[in-house]
Amino acid sequence: MIVVLKHGVEAAKREQLIDWLKGQGLTIHISEGEYQTVLGLVGDTTRVDMDLIASLGIVDSVKRVTEPFKCCNRKFHPDDTVIDVNGVKIGGNFVMIAGPCSVESEEQIVAVAKAVKASGANILRGGAFKPRTSPYDFQGLKATGLELLKIARQETGLPIVTEIMGVEHLPLFEDVDIIQVGARNMQNFDLLRELGKLRKPILLKRGLASTLKELLMSAEYIMAGGNEQVILCERGIRTFDDYTRNTLDLAAVPMLKELTHLPIIVDPSHATGIARLVEPMALAATACGADGLIIEVHNDPMHALCDGAQSLRPEVYDDLAQKVRSIREVIAK
Amino acid sequence: MIVVLKHGVEAAKREQLIDWLKGQGLTIHISEGEYQTVLGLVGDTTRVDMDLIASLGIVDSVKRVTEPFKCCNRKFHPDDTVIDVNGVKIGGNFVMIAGPCSVESEEQIVAVAKAVKASGANILRGGAFKPRTSPYDFQGLKATGLELLKIARQETGLPIVTEIMGVEHLPLFEDVDIIQVGARNMQNFDLLRELGKLRKPILLKRGLASTLKELLMSAEYIMAGGNEQVILCERGIRTFDDYTRNTLDLAAVPMLKELTHLPIIVDPSHATGIARLVEPMALAATACGADGLIIEVHNDPMHALCDGAQSLRPEVYDDLAQKVRSIREVIAK
Amino acid sequence: MIVVLKHGVEAAKREQLIDWLKGQGLTIHISEGEYQTVLGLVGDTTRVDMDLIASLGIVDSVKRVTEPFKCCNRKFHPDDTVIDVNGVKIGGNFVMIAGPCSVESEEQIVAVAKAVKASGANILRGGAFKPRTSPYDFQGLKATGLELLKIARQETGLPIVTEIMGVEHLPLFEDVDIIQVGARNMQNFDLLRELGKLRKPILLKRGLASTLKELLMSAEYIMAGGNEQVILCERGIRTFDDYTRNTLDLAAVPMLKELTHLPIIVDPSHATGIARLVEPMALAATACGADGLIIEVHNDPMHALCDGAQSLRPEVYDDLAQKVRSIREVIAK
Amino acid sequence: MIVVLKHGVEAAKREQLIDWLKGQGLTIHISEGEYQTVLGLVGDTTRVDMDLIASLGIVDSVKRVTEPFKCCNRKFHPDDTVIDVNGVKIGGNFVMIAGPCSVESEEQIVAVAKAVKASGANILRGGAFKPRTSPYDFQGLKATGLELLKIARQETGLPIVTEIMGVEHLPLFEDVDIIQVGARNMQNFDLLRELGKLRKPILLKRGLASTLKELLMSAEYIMAGGNEQVILCERGIRTFDDYTRNTLDLAAVPMLKELTHLPIIVDPSHATGIARLVEPMALAATACGADGLIIEVHNDPMHALCDGAQSLRPEVYDDLAQKVRSIREVIAK
Repeated sequence: MIVVLKHGVEAAKREQLIDWLKGQGLTIHISEGEYQTVLGLVGDTTRVDMDLIASLGIVDSVKRVTEPFKCCNRKFHPDDTVIDVNGVKIGGNFVMIAGPCSVESEEQIVAVAKAVKASGANILRGGAFKPRTSPYDFQGLKATGLELLKIARQETGLPIVTEIMGVEHLPLFEDVDIIQVGARNMQNFDLLRELGKLRKPILLKRGLASTLKELLMSAEYIMAGGNEQVILCERGIRTFDDYTRNTLDLAAVPMLKELTHLPIIVDPSHATGIARLVEPMALAATACGADGLIIEVHNDPMHALCDGAQSLRPEVYDDLAQKVRSIREVIAK
Repeated sequence: MIVVLKHGVEAAKREQLIDWLKGQGLTIHISEGEYQTVLGLVGDTTRVDMDLIASLGIVDSVKRVTEPFKCCNRKFHPDDTVIDVNGVKIGGNFVMIAGPCSVESEEQIVAVAKAVKASGANILRGGAFKPRTSPYDFQGLKATGLELLKIARQETGLPIVTEIMGVEHLPLFEDVDIIQVGARNMQNFDLLRELGKLRKPILLKRGLASTLKELLMSAEYIMAGGNEQVILCERGIRTFDDYTRNTLDLAAVPMLKELTHLPIIVDPSHATGIARLVEPMALAATACGADGLIIEVHNDPMHALCDGAQSLRPEVYDDLAQKVRSIREVIAK
Repeated sequence: MIVVLKHGVEAAKREQLIDWLKGQGLTIHISEGEYQTVLGLVGDTTRVDMDLIASLGIVDSVKRVTEPFKCCNRKFHPDDTVIDVNGVKIGGNFVMIAGPCSVESEEQIVAVAKAVKASGANILRGGAFKPRTSPYDFQGLKATGLELLKIARQETGLPIVTEIMGVEHLPLFEDVDIIQVGARNMQNFDLLRELGKLRKPILLKRGLASTLKELLMSAEYIMAGGNEQVILCERGIRTFDDYTRNTLDLAAVPMLKELTHLPIIVDPSHATGIARLVEPMALAATACGADGLIIEVHNDPMHALCDGAQSLRPEVYDDLAQKVRSIREVIAK
Repeated sequence: MIVVLKHGVEAAKREQLIDWLKGQGLTIHISEGEYQTVLGLVGDTTRVDMDLIASLGIVDSVKRVTEPFKCCNRKFHPDDTVIDVNGVKIGGNFVMIAGPCSVESEEQIVAVAKAVKASGANILRGGAFKPRTSPYDFQGLKATGLELLKIARQETGLPIVTEIMGVEHLPLFEDVDIIQVGARNMQNFDLLRELGKLRKPILLKRGLASTLKELLMSAEYIMAGGNEQVILCERGIRTFDDYTRNTLDLAAVPMLKELTHLPIIVDPSHATGIARLVEPMALAATACGADGLIIEVHNDPMHALCDGAQSLRPEVYDDLAQKVRSIREVIAK
């Protein structure tokens, strides 16, 4: 950490700050310039409050030179994490997660599960607990939805992933293969901490206004508890742009692969909110090196209870899946 | 709701859509133009999924003409809501909420409470459960912190407001006067729904990337449950701007006063993250018509356990409080 | 255009507004609802000032239902525009534009031109007039740089594209094949209007904070003057994200292809500002259907005078170009 | 400038970088940590390309510790700049700039000028050259508009400020008192450079997506040419927020006053785009320490040719001006 002092600060105040920093177990290197003095802080700066230091009258600015995340930092774990979900590898090879926005009925979820499996999907998604902006919108089938997902798993052999909305529902998720944390809960720290106590894969979606560092710090909450099976998911960020629902930030994929060893998948359905943009953005995500895709597929969009606007019909998904495989072959060369 | 059809759509498909819309209890007005046909949907469109309609091949675009929020909509409740907290009115006259970022000790919280009361504050704030980006940062004194707040309330008579982080902590908050929902939990819908069952004021902070409509829809979650005592709080949004922590969106204050009857307060401490910007932004918030301010005050910023960078010393707060009162006099004329 | 009136407006004021709208040659359809009255404006609403109407006391909101752009609107010109630059087709097949950030010397520009041609590039880029944030940074070789570009064109046969910074430089650009308008000048309307008088291809880069509609309105400035040869370029937008220089908005590619018949290329070099992210984002842009790529290539990044951080060495570009061709084959199937 | 090297870099590569940096006249301080080595660069780092260094394989990150602006930096010029425009001081005391969006006729501009003067305005604004998003919108009276402004100046004695759109119009602006550079031209560097050759006040508006540093770098372009009379103007930035046209970033006011000695005024009319929000935001801007306000006033908004939505009627402006003076008294105490 680097602390830049203002020009002409009193020696006494400067010494007071240096003593206080040393009191936190740090070694201080002093470098004097014409207009300012720079303090280099060496040691464990993870717990140093840089905002507090920046607020002091004698300080011009503070810069961190090390990332504050450890468990998920590629510097300390150079090899890719590979997560095994009932034989499906996430992080090692490409994973195709697909299914309806909401679980609606046994007939629906089993039909979609069979269809996406036939197209090459290896994990089934489906919402049972639905976060909705409006209290008047459909909120999901909840516990019943979870049971229907398990039936679809039994029928197809596909592991299931579904979203949790609060700590109080954890007992219901015991038999779920991957627990999803939605974008709005990315900084629900109580929930993250509880998930850290499990030994089960967590699919962590990036928040709408979250930096990559914040996403990694949320992964860190889970990993610090001992659960190292975290899958990151880019699903669009909020910008001034108003033609798509969110702005899919695909450069986050290669950037995250530099910063962390965790697998990174992409959700083009929620990112764009428009079914006809899902295929081009799925192909783009594959081309830039994502470890997988999570895509909404529905057998009858006209009657879907939520988010129908972004769901694909099975035949469109099938076509997309073939192109994805061809692109994987190109970039794997 | 307005549905614009594409040019030259098949009559059969058009009729199918119209029938489907009528099946949802709506009346349809058709207006034909040279390049497109516009359908006007009259009736209760709150439950109509505009994204789904927008996704249909024959539809060009969909526009809502009524807001989807009801309980908090000023159109249906023209008079300002006034919330009474042990005699302190929020919404009727100006409210000054102040206190430390975190509760640290009995000595600290009582000292700050007495100081801010002497400066004219009428509600005490203090964090017991702290949402922190990093799992390695101080997370608050939790239940102990709540007890210390109650001691400070007893010593000064000031009602207390403090943040809740999850449904599972609700029993601990029974004797808290105002429960705060932080920006990161603004769309923790499970939590909002539980708070809707209480009959206790809720201070709802705007999320970092939330539109005003989303803030109001979150208030609607609480109010739809029967708890009409919601206080909104603008605390800065996330933008490209990098000199302050967040961008304080003060135009939201007069805009929200048009849209809703709920009181709106401003938090200049978290918005800027810089102590020396708190006074100018507090004065600005007062000048544009906010119903109150929530400000961080600490008796010793150098040793604050978190967010010290944005806390004021009591003497600075005292000066600020005087200026705020003078500005209130100007705009109340 | 749809005008929603407030509940309970005076009949006299309402009639005054309707008369005023009719005075602008519009036909008005009136639809009365329980809480509001909606006016449907039919006719040429391109010149109607929707902000003015929205500001009137009796108006609740105004929504446009037709896009304000015409010349570049795909609704009125369903077929893709194909621009022919000395035999190189832009819009019909994939175009590879490459070259150094700045033209530095004859040796440099000729060497890079030959290298990128060998890798399959069919247009040469190179900056002669450089927009720099700081007045103290290198501003380009200007007229000399243009001459060097022409030498490279003669040596390789590659058409050249280079950026113009102001109307006053137009005479110098007579012999340039494609004139580039940079992101910062996307709304330099005087410049756009002058370029509309030419009959020469214009490469129009999207502004950092421009919506797709604004980009298209700027294209419209050029086309309204009679110059229909406009190439759009997505090069990243400004968001809160701080790991890459800008956020490459790839969903803009398929979205623009719906809205307009103009060709759309992508600039992954400026979008990310990081050389090692150029390849993944170039592949992603290709996969989602871009009509071409513009990429910075330099023979010695360590000594580049500007933007070296995002330039590729020729051998890296060669590898990228091969992968791009393979991905084109996949999506062209 | 601080350069953080990656862990375990080859000694030879490290020496090569250090030699190259020394070759640019810098002194290098080396500080070795457990996981990384930090190089401190001392000397004139204004011209060092930090993006280039960041792109090198052995470099982890680069941080600037000094601002790249000099002429406008308060560190080197602690006293406030005061600009005298025909006796009106900008920077010393509060300035009230007002007038119509567009100059439309002699009758209109003289009437508005007299009205705003009577309310206490001391500078007249009015658009003659209008930057419009659409080529089909009214573009201003141009040279005729400038003449009408001069007539209004003669009638009232108010100095005039009006926007320039391109270098080619400079001769027409010789007799204008203050030349305005609009938000869209904030990085039209050719224009800025030419304005730097004048000895006339320049009102420089912040771009929609410009950081404070970029705004100051644009001021630096003008000042580096010898023209030190620059007035900065905050007028709203582009964010995800959709209720107001832009988000007025008032914290920029106290922040800019720390960073620079130049005067800072605020434009609440363009920032919000909504007439009824102009007063609250004008009062807020005054309360947080702005050096003045620029506000749109029109005698008949219903017939304004552009931007009528955000213009105030003279009587509303008069009321606003009185409140502004009262708030100035409060904060000047």
